[in-house]
Amino acid sequence: MARMTAAGERPATAPGDEMYALVERLYPLCRSITGDGVRATLDIVGEHIPLQVHEVPTGTQVLDWTVPQEWNIRDAYIADTDGNRIVDFAASSLHVLGYSVPVSATMPLADLRAHLHTLPDHPSWVPYRTSYYQPEWGFCLAQETLDAMPDGEYEVRIDSTLADGHLTYAEHMVPGQVPDEVIVSCHVCHPSLANDNLAGIAVATFLARALAEQTPYYTYRFIFAPGTIGAITWLARNAERVDRVKHGLVLACAGDPGSLTYKQSRRGDAEIDRVMRHVLAASERPHRVTEFTPYGYDERQFCSPGFNLGVGSLTRTPYAGYPEYHTSADNLDFVSREAMADTLAVCREAFAVLDRNRQYVNLSPYGEPQLGRRGLYDALGGRSDTKQAQMAMLWVLNLSDGEHSLLDVAERSGLPFDTVATAAGALHGAGLIKA
Amino acid sequence: MARMTAAGERPATAPGDEMYALVERLYPLCRSITGDGVRATLDIVGEHIPLQVHEVPTGTQVLDWTVPQEWNIRDAYIADTDGNRIVDFAASSLHVLGYSVPVSATMPLADLRAHLHTLPDHPSWVPYRTSYYQPEWGFCLAQETLDAMPDGEYEVRIDSTLADGHLTYAEHMVPGQVPDEVIVSCHVCHPSLANDNLAGIAVATFLARALAEQTPYYTYRFIFAPGTIGAITWLARNAERVDRVKHGLVLACAGDPGSLTYKQSRRGDAEIDRVMRHVLAASERPHRVTEFTPYGYDERQFCSPGFNLGVGSLTRTPYAGYPEYHTSADNLDFVSREAMADTLAVCREAFAVLDRNRQYVNLSPYGEPQLGRRGLYDALGGRSDTKQAQMAMLWVLNLSDGEHSLLDVAERSGLPFDTVATAAGALHGAGLIKA
Amino acid sequence: MARMTAAGERPATAPGDEMYALVERLYPLCRSITGDGVRATLDIVGEHIPLQVHEVPTGTQVLDWTVPQEWNIRDAYIADTDGNRIVDFAASSLHVLGYSVPVSATMPLADLRAHLHTLPDHPSWVPYRTSYYQPEWGFCLAQETLDAMPDGEYEVRIDSTLADGHLTYAEHMVPGQVPDEVIVSCHVCHPSLANDNLAGIAVATFLARALAEQTPYYTYRFIFAPGTIGAITWLARNAERVDRVKHGLVLACAGDPGSLTYKQSRRGDAEIDRVMRHVLAASERPHRVTEFTPYGYDERQFCSPGFNLGVGSLTRTPYAGYPEYHTSADNLDFVSREAMADTLAVCREAFAVLDRNRQYVNLSPYGEPQLGRRGLYDALGGRSDTKQAQMAMLWVLNLSDGEHSLLDVAERSGLPFDTVATAAGALHGAGLIKA
Repeated sequence: MARMTAAGERPATAPGDEMYALVERLYPLCRSITGDGVRATLDIVGEHIPLQVHEVPTGTQVLDWTVPQEWNIRDAYIADTDGNRIVDFAASSLHVLGYSVPVSATMPLADLRAHLHTLPDHPSWVPYRTSYYQPEWGFCLAQETLDAMPDGEYEVRIDSTLADGHLTYAEHMVPGQVPDEVIVSCHVCHPSLANDNLAGIAVATFLARALAEQTPYYTYRFIFAPGTIGAITWLARNAERVDRVKHGLVLACAGDPGSLTYKQSRRGDAEIDRVMRHVLAASERPHRVTEFTPYGYDERQFCSPGFNLGVGSLTRTPYAGYPEYHTSADNLDFVSREAMADTLAVCREAFAVLDRNRQYVNLSPYGEPQLGRRGLYDALGGRSDTKQAQMAMLWVLNLSDGEHSLLDVAERSGLPFDTVATAAGALHGAGLIKA
Repeated sequence: MARMTAAGERPATAPGDEMYALVERLYPLCRSITGDGVRATLDIVGEHIPLQVHEVPTGTQVLDWTVPQEWNIRDAYIADTDGNRIVDFAASSLHVLGYSVPVSATMPLADLRAHLHTLPDHPSWVPYRTSYYQPEWGFCLAQETLDAMPDGEYEVRIDSTLADGHLTYAEHMVPGQVPDEVIVSCHVCHPSLANDNLAGIAVATFLARALAEQTPYYTYRFIFAPGTIGAITWLARNAERVDRVKHGLVLACAGDPGSLTYKQSRRGDAEIDRVMRHVLAASERPHRVTEFTPYGYDERQFCSPGFNLGVGSLTRTPYAGYPEYHTSADNLDFVSREAMADTLAVCREAFAVLDRNRQYVNLSPYGEPQLGRRGLYDALGGRSDTKQAQMAMLWVLNLSDGEHSLLDVAERSGLPFDTVATAAGALHGAGLIKA
Repeated sequence: MARMTAAGERPATAPGDEMYALVERLYPLCRSITGDGVRATLDIVGEHIPLQVHEVPTGTQVLDWTVPQEWNIRDAYIADTDGNRIVDFAASSLHVLGYSVPVSATMPLADLRAHLHTLPDHPSWVPYRTSYYQPEWGFCLAQETLDAMPDGEYEVRIDSTLADGHLTYAEHMVPGQVPDEVIVSCHVCHPSLANDNLAGIAVATFLARALAEQTPYYTYRFIFAPGTIGAITWLARNAERVDRVKHGLVLACAGDPGSLTYKQSRRGDAEIDRVMRHVLAASERPHRVTEFTPYGYDERQFCSPGFNLGVGSLTRTPYAGYPEYHTSADNLDFVSREAMADTLAVCREAFAVLDRNRQYVNLSPYGEPQLGRRGLYDALGGRSDTKQAQMAMLWVLNLSDGEHSLLDVAERSGLPFDTVATAAGALHGAGLIKA
């Protein structure tokens, strides 16, 4: 599934290419927790998978929060007295402090400085900053740009509106055999940051497409929503049905060059935690599994103590774990087709396990059933080698006592989950176990 | 208990010698899962300990299985056109595929090959093969024998019968103070294989004799039965009383040069598991403790999920763990008096712990009882050394809360089990604890 | 808190100095499990903190024990025929076997030897020996003194009385906000031994004074009682209210040069065990945490299975862990101001944690509450650094589900307990959590 490194033809549908193309299209848009940038983003995602878009009015009470005013921005710049735009929103959506109130003024650099945000340690990078809940305006720029600005008067203009409107989020559902749900959530509120979280959006989109190839066991619900307030809004509007959510995964930072990191749910032993640990270990990829912390992405909300859902978070390098985090250096060069394809592959492997992981009950639990007369066992005895498939059947029979899942069997036996699931299928077919 | 290695007189009753002599007598017999070889084997064991022999008719339903027809064999050979027996059952019971149907034919080597079993990697060894539940005939021979056979016609003859009869197994009971049982099981179905399982039979026989030297606490039941179908038959016929079985041990591969391996019960924390781990560790013998797997010997049946008995398995090198396994190289040279004596010694040590391991209740649980006025404590205070016996009494008193056994006390205190059990006896004698 | 090592002025109230001065005053007194030495000791302690002194008559039944006769001693010596006192109680209270019955006799050295106790391995040290419950008399002396005694007649005299009287112990209480108690216990029965246990008495005394500086949450009860029989007497007289004791600490060997050792309660996971482990680890002092054993100091009684209190024991080098233990070498040179101050500091740190460790319940458990509008959260988003105080609030909110204490939060988050407790205070003040 990794991109071929040698020059040559690649099929147009290779998921790495498709995901990268999606990231490229989304990159220039100025997203925030509300506004037209989110809508444009969802329109583009909607070209790949059908989305149900929700608009929630400003002022709506959502749990402990209130949906804020909608923010939209058309233009923003700092210009010198000659009218040269030194900092220009048109060049990068990062240049304006997110949720800046409108401003139109001329002021000396000395006064302007209080509204300027830079990264002195990375003088050529532009930081990403917001002020959602306190009225404020500001610009983000490279330290070296600031250093080159002579004292004197500057024209500052932010052509934004902050007005009653809506918070926008979308859902996509892959119907399953049972109404029990797996949620996959990613935040859509960050402006021109490729890894955080356009790569996550891309992986979620193509994961949804892959899951729909055949009817899965679970119903999979994909949530594309702004961070924090979006997850809170979704939870508030779905509080009655949140008990349908059996497992979940928050996807973010899905395209950087680092190895994969799975952050466990607050429970730590939720089935998704066990599945992800198993799949990552079995894949022999370098990876990290970390404990839950109440910081990071929207697992914070899904794992708040009142909900306490079995929702973990999959990233490559986790949030704030790389210098490019929340800066202009998290750009299209920072993410790769290969990394996104790898993240997607692990998600598919994990959901392939999760979707088939069930507890069976051995219907012939007293002694071993005679597998031979059912055609499930080699007739010739005495040999010292035993096939994995037969071992898997013995393990499934032995542990199918209503307390062990197929994943338990795989972990205890050391056999691949696939072999175990296949054996369970054979035993189920022979009427020896029931689900 | 180990055999003296220097030349010199050894008492005729040294258990290593006696066990080896028993293995030597049993070795030539052609055992299978039914038939006169099993009966002859039990007759010889019965010279050492009284046995109750059970005969179960062909066709009897036993759990998911049916007792098969009885197999007996008188002669079998492959002869060349000159009448020279190239492969001869009379030389080794391994030469015939176990449960071979009768055959009497002349055929070219090309046709015969489909019925010949060899070990190309060990060209001078004869493999052990069976086909209990699928009608088949065949011969097992050395690869080098086969290589020396010129093309041409061969006379093949297996003078066997497969007919309604019985499955034979035996029990020996050492009555104890309570009806709760410890079972010791070993399989008696393998032909001329010394370690697997004549050594196990020998150790079980002499273990039974040792246990009978004084009335044990538990009732010990020894089961000599063919593998799989024998254990299943025993379980089927004892289903009503299987809840009397509190602990158990499957003995196999008890005489090879490897160190001891204890395979834990399916429960993993059954009392026999804890006892065996403790005794092996305390003995400072090199050894291994392994997790349960649903493959191996008859622990597979005793530990099937419906029964889930606290039955582990003690071997030296475990099944399939040595190249000689299930070949003619598992012969009288492969087992030793010393190894069998060592296996027996560990069994005796383990049962000495198991048999005395009980939970007591401290009848004076508020503060320490005054041991001094009961003559249980040194009168002279202030010394920095304290005798193990006194420490053991304090530990037994402190942990006798109805939740800790003497083995718990030994493990938590680091004191030898024997010291702890002796202390418990003294406290019991003083009326300070009750069982 | 450690004593300054460079020459210079130290405040007269430095706790190390005060504790050492207390040890110096107590050192010459001849204490035993009863008698005037205990009373004099409690009188001196009572000059520092108010004590409630209890006198329990000889013959009183206390649990499995009986309060013994009271022992007092005025003089004791071994003199040669010239009247020279070779061993003299006036020089050290250790010279007489504790609870010696009176004797006045002249006897040859050969007969006297059975009554003499020495330490051959430490020929210049005098051992500490007692015989509380078996009538006996004896002297303890240096081996080199004994070696220098020529054969011949000696006058031996012990002017002691063993008569109906009382067992004496004292309590000091620091009232708290709740009646739930923390007990701090130390033994007061050892004669001229500085580390065991005058240092423990001194640390307990100044710990009590420190706790009273502000009203603690718990009620702290300090128990100064003779070892074993004193703890048993206290338990017998407080059996009805022992369930008020939620936590406890036995203090002993608090002044030697070794690092701190915390011996866990019998439960092993009592809150005091967790607190002590946490504080010792967080302090980065070298230290040891050991499992409970039913030997040592009065934790033996508090942790007897009937009471099973959450009482651990804090020492520096534990009992019998140093050669000076129970010898004349456990003298005023063996303990230091710095060591006692360090022990006191750890006790204060531990009780500061214990006293504030509570479980809270998040009153806004569905999603995160909006901390920003309550002034508890930085308004400016997007930065990759997050302050510890904010992280602590998120952790407290996330884990305040009625199953986690603040100590759990500190351990799981890796944040200092103090930061966590402060965050809990802020959240409590904002009405977001309740106790």
